[in-house]
Amino acid sequence: GKDDADDGGVVVAQISKNKRVSVRSWSGKVMVDVREFYVKDGKDLPGRKGISLTMDQWKILRDNIKAIDEAIKENT
Amino acid sequence: GKDDADDGGVVVAQISKNKRVSVRSWSGKVMVDVREFYVKDGKDLPGRKGISLTMDQWKILRDNIKAIDEAIKENT
Repeated sequence: GKDDADDGGVVVAQISKNKRVSVRSWSGKVMVDVREFYVKDGKDLPGRKGISLTMDQWKILRDNIKAIDEAIKENT
Repeated sequence: GKDDADDGGVVVAQISKNKRVSVRSWSGKVMVDVREFYVKDGKDLPGRKGISLTMDQWKILRDNIKAIDEAIKENT
């Protein structure tokens, strides 16, 4: 479909001009990928900068949203 | 303090043995960094794999938590 990333995953959120959050299955594991993309020959390709999170890692990040927002406030 | 990352930021969440979420100010901008770390000479150093998000980018990610969790369900 139109939301499919070129790596077979699904793009869930475009967070900047060249950064995306996508979800994909890889070797039977679901991963959340936060990554830069670039365009080559009309194709969107994953860039070097980014990180793939396993479900365990994603859940810990998600459970720490409030703590992250508090740290942001303290640093602003 | 003990929670300070070596780059001057604050480690908010350890999401795996070698991955962390930290918040830091950089050139007057607050960034959320999701990144691998490694130990060298007893110091924790930021690794190559990771991504730094501006406040705008972080907010979009945060506002898409539900959509990410739904995409995970569909891929599981």
